[in-house]
Amino acid sequence: MSNITIIAERINMTRKKMRERIWERDIDFVVNEVKKQEHMGATHIDINAGGDPSKEVEDMIWLTELVSKATELPISFDSANPDALKAGLEICNRPGTIINSITGEKSRIENTLPLVIEYNTHAIALTMDDNGMPPDLDARIRVVDNLVVLMKENNISLDRIHMDTLVQPVSSNPEQVAYTIAGIKYIHENYPEMHTMVGLSNVSYGVPRRIHMNRAFFVLLIQAGLDGAIIDNTADGMLGAMLATLAMLGKDEYCMDYISAARTEKI
Amino acid sequence: MSNITIIAERINMTRKKMRERIWERDIDFVVNEVKKQEHMGATHIDINAGGDPSKEVEDMIWLTELVSKATELPISFDSANPDALKAGLEICNRPGTIINSITGEKSRIENTLPLVIEYNTHAIALTMDDNGMPPDLDARIRVVDNLVVLMKENNISLDRIHMDTLVQPVSSNPEQVAYTIAGIKYIHENYPEMHTMVGLSNVSYGVPRRIHMNRAFFVLLIQAGLDGAIIDNTADGMLGAMLATLAMLGKDEYCMDYISAARTEKI
Repeated sequence: MSNITIIAERINMTRKKMRERIWERDIDFVVNEVKKQEHMGATHIDINAGGDPSKEVEDMIWLTELVSKATELPISFDSANPDALKAGLEICNRPGTIINSITGEKSRIENTLPLVIEYNTHAIALTMDDNGMPPDLDARIRVVDNLVVLMKENNISLDRIHMDTLVQPVSSNPEQVAYTIAGIKYIHENYPEMHTMVGLSNVSYGVPRRIHMNRAFFVLLIQAGLDGAIIDNTADGMLGAMLATLAMLGKDEYCMDYISAARTEKI
Repeated sequence: MSNITIIAERINMTRKKMRERIWERDIDFVVNEVKKQEHMGATHIDINAGGDPSKEVEDMIWLTELVSKATELPISFDSANPDALKAGLEICNRPGTIINSITGEKSRIENTLPLVIEYNTHAIALTMDDNGMPPDLDARIRVVDNLVVLMKENNISLDRIHMDTLVQPVSSNPEQVAYTIAGIKYIHENYPEMHTMVGLSNVSYGVPRRIHMNRAFFVLLIQAGLDGAIIDNTADGMLGAMLATLAMLGKDEYCMDYISAARTEKI
């Protein structure tokens, strides 16, 4: 309904409740999560099967088979384990499939980049490298530039890359929000064919009533030009915040998408 | 709790339900509205007694007596009728009292400006004049400049003026949001002592589920530097949107105001 890529993040086995239901092999529960996220505008269903490293591959297989039957949306495979990624990709590799994620870390490049190439997928790239999370804007930009060089060396077109300029909790790092926003603008100005992406809920880590901050951050990021987010798109008002912002930026003529979402009870 | 002036707009007799309860002289109902708005961070209680022109003065008197007993906040007197304004001001004229509103229209200047001077109040100034609502940014700026000259001629210091650059419904005028935002920036750059103010809910006129748009607009306006709003501050998530945005702009150290508002169930 818009040009924003929405990676729906709920099927994530690092969350206790989700992990328990998936280990119970509760098919209805998982299918319901997929349907709900799709109804609320997801463009991709993220699967994180990392509940227990020793079971990640089998859980990824079970989830990918189930999710790919429940929806026609492409999947975002969320793992640092190349065996789990490969297991998922062998089952379902629709156009638009995403590997979540690569970074500038040597080990991650060695383990994950070959799969992006072999399976011809999109990838979320995090602006971190073996020096860790960049402390400021300049350091983030250096990581972005280095990752772009890496992609070009491997003939990966930049429109397959969704660069996540990362964000740290605002409660301890208020200046980080400005770096994230400036990072998004830098990318769209310097690499217009590349996409931007933010896993935005980290901004509200450590404060109560996180939804207010997640929603407001989404508005600020979209205004800065963000064209993708990893979010719980079923959370109260997240989709409404996105559609409202797009309408006010003149990207939804006569508020058609906004009004249609209201009529179908998405917002 | 912040530097944003919040004019709480619920006591407004142009709304049918409110008008009926006030004509019934339902004291508990009105007092409850005052308390609710104060709890949710109002800095001013707006009173609009314009239910019936022939009763406006007596309704303004009844409301002002009641509201001024229920709270120690200053009142924002919302009327184009100088007799109603004067009646209210005679009862309650606390520091910070606002006349809502003056404009660049000749009749409004003649009727209302003398009261701003006589009672030494603040005033909300709307960027419209006898030519109507300015169609674009340049026309708005001309009205702002003219109003500033008028204030200076009358020895009204600009820190008593809250300039509302107005907004039209985004469903029919998507470009107007950009004018409103640019107007706010223009004012803060050119007249740093003057305040800005937006009666923001007009942005969502004509669309369903207006709350999403009102909240997102509030975020965009605060980022642009807005330091006051006429809002229903009890509406779902409005205060949360404001506090979240201030925290992310680095204007709420360690999210103290945000966390405190959550603990006291304001957000």
